[in-house]
Amino acid sequence: MNVDGKHYRTIWLSPDDPALVQIIDQRHLPHRFVIEDLSSVSDAARAIKDMHVRGAGLIGAAAGYGMYLAALEARDRSGDAFLEALARSGETLKATRPTAVNLEWAVARQIEAVSTAPDTPARLRTARETAAAIADEDAEFCRRIGEHGLALIEEISRRKAGEPVNILTHCNAGWLAFVDYGTATAPIYAAYDRGIPVHVWVDETRPRNQGARLTAWELGHHGVPHAVIADNAGGHLMQHGRVDLVITGTDRTTRTGDVANKIGTYLKALAAKDNGIPFYVALPSSTFDWRMLDGLREIPIEQRDATEVRTIRGLHEGEIKAVQLTPEHSPAANYAFDVTPARLVTKLITERGVCDASEESILGLYPERRNDG
Amino acid sequence: MNVDGKHYRTIWLSPDDPALVQIIDQRHLPHRFVIEDLSSVSDAARAIKDMHVRGAGLIGAAAGYGMYLAALEARDRSGDAFLEALARSGETLKATRPTAVNLEWAVARQIEAVSTAPDTPARLRTARETAAAIADEDAEFCRRIGEHGLALIEEISRRKAGEPVNILTHCNAGWLAFVDYGTATAPIYAAYDRGIPVHVWVDETRPRNQGARLTAWELGHHGVPHAVIADNAGGHLMQHGRVDLVITGTDRTTRTGDVANKIGTYLKALAAKDNGIPFYVALPSSTFDWRMLDGLREIPIEQRDATEVRTIRGLHEGEIKAVQLTPEHSPAANYAFDVTPARLVTKLITERGVCDASEESILGLYPERRNDG
Repeated sequence: MNVDGKHYRTIWLSPDDPALVQIIDQRHLPHRFVIEDLSSVSDAARAIKDMHVRGAGLIGAAAGYGMYLAALEARDRSGDAFLEALARSGETLKATRPTAVNLEWAVARQIEAVSTAPDTPARLRTARETAAAIADEDAEFCRRIGEHGLALIEEISRRKAGEPVNILTHCNAGWLAFVDYGTATAPIYAAYDRGIPVHVWVDETRPRNQGARLTAWELGHHGVPHAVIADNAGGHLMQHGRVDLVITGTDRTTRTGDVANKIGTYLKALAAKDNGIPFYVALPSSTFDWRMLDGLREIPIEQRDATEVRTIRGLHEGEIKAVQLTPEHSPAANYAFDVTPARLVTKLITERGVCDASEESILGLYPERRNDG
Repeated sequence: MNVDGKHYRTIWLSPDDPALVQIIDQRHLPHRFVIEDLSSVSDAARAIKDMHVRGAGLIGAAAGYGMYLAALEARDRSGDAFLEALARSGETLKATRPTAVNLEWAVARQIEAVSTAPDTPARLRTARETAAAIADEDAEFCRRIGEHGLALIEEISRRKAGEPVNILTHCNAGWLAFVDYGTATAPIYAAYDRGIPVHVWVDETRPRNQGARLTAWELGHHGVPHAVIADNAGGHLMQHGRVDLVITGTDRTTRTGDVANKIGTYLKALAAKDNGIPFYVALPSSTFDWRMLDGLREIPIEQRDATEVRTIRGLHEGEIKAVQLTPEHSPAANYAFDVTPARLVTKLITERGVCDASEESILGLYPERRNDG
């Protein structure tokens, strides 16, 4: 997508040096746009662990490129020693964010691909091509989600006869969380790029404010009209006809259509239902957990450090500073995700198309998963 | 209530100087406990306008004491000149927060009371007694709300056989918003003081964070176990049986039981309904708008400065600083209140007792209002 009019992805190989991976260091957003060079496995591991990059798709792509850097580091070893070094680097990368499914998957895919290559040049080429393939597939899946979701926005736009379509989103399921396009944002960018008037309500998404920091930043740089709102405001806007549809991403979705996503998503889904507003969830199929039937009972919800609730970071006189919000001795609790039951989800938007949030409808798009439960 | 073990109200006459009004300057909470002297009408007006004091009940009491200071300032005038000066001061006070109903009411009550006093000593005495009466009545109404709400908590406590009763509240309808006890907090303090184990989930209440700043502070100083949570978290806690009841205050309630309160209240009411959790609203009867029948259509919702969403204030290295949260060019929208329809409200807790959120049930407690509609 666009930053100051120039096209970017969230991760790429340096055009000047094919042994250098580059990323947008997202810790500085929205206040500074910083590009970081990753020239070693330990650089890549630190970037994932310390959240220079985040989001399911981008973590997978960063692990893919991290394994390419691992292959470069091991280039002087041969045979088993090369593969052993690669496996060790894979363990290092996997240990950075233990619950990120895409991390494990990207490492395994690289090891499998590289293992079959006959010699060092082939191994390096395979590792580079596999990293690029992981990134390209992520971008392509998001692009398709955008096309499928576009039809839903177009339909509402026709009904509104030229009035802007108001879309509410929560957290950041934008291109910054993937390689390009994003999931929840992909239909929005597709609509905007085709000249459909849209306006996005961006939930700030406490406690980590991914909406206010990242979604607002990427929409702004692409030129999409938007306004940041407190997480409390969405219900009021829906009651007064100011929201035409809700689109969010998801961190994990059961085969029955229950959606785990950033804490607070469930509250917006309830308000959408109460006001007859469609609530869409956009996801690549890698986000489905094909074994799970009951999201509320089965999906574990991470509790994070209470410091994220007690403090917040922002810009003060040109510097990023943390300020304390709560009384010194007041405890805080920090649940990171919640589960929106399938009954509140209007449709799922996947790379294969749009379906109901029900096992039958999901398996209609993914029949090969029928026996994975 | 208690601050560091000592009893306080939010406003009082100095024990050393009966011409001096004292308040807790709430702008510094929770980071500093500052008592401010008000010795003139302009001091009182500034304290209300710049939100050293806030909350319906406390604004009324501050206006009452402001009019007592006005009487002191006019003491050397006689007859009509005295009353004219008093009226001018009343206008000054009323102009500070034009939408605060209690402000106008307290000023009018003082003018009416003082007008009938025969001479200057009687006028000053009447103004002081009226100010004290306004404050005492506010505290007494909140105390009664606490007693009526206590029964509801006791019932849940019996069912939980000694396990703490988990109460979720939004914003600050605590003693800091009134003269003492608060409304939503009054039943909580009453339960705690009687040894019933309670635990309070405190919504931080973005954008102005009255929960994280004020409710957490007052609960902590009174010793009530609590935890601050992001506004996004309540639904998840309710889904998992971690909330036994919700109590909030209200800024305006229609005669039909529709409740205007801090933005985000509606989302919690939806979640309470979805999970079969009682949702109570505590209010003194002065908060009823007896003319209104449809809260969603009739109650005007204030839009405040977007700066409150774009920035936040907190403590950094011992100093209170504002930090910017959003991208420099991203707009923000700031709706201050929302309306929770009566169908989502389990009961109203008033100074006269508990009733359904319906016109018939409300008028059962306030039969004299039957013809005010």
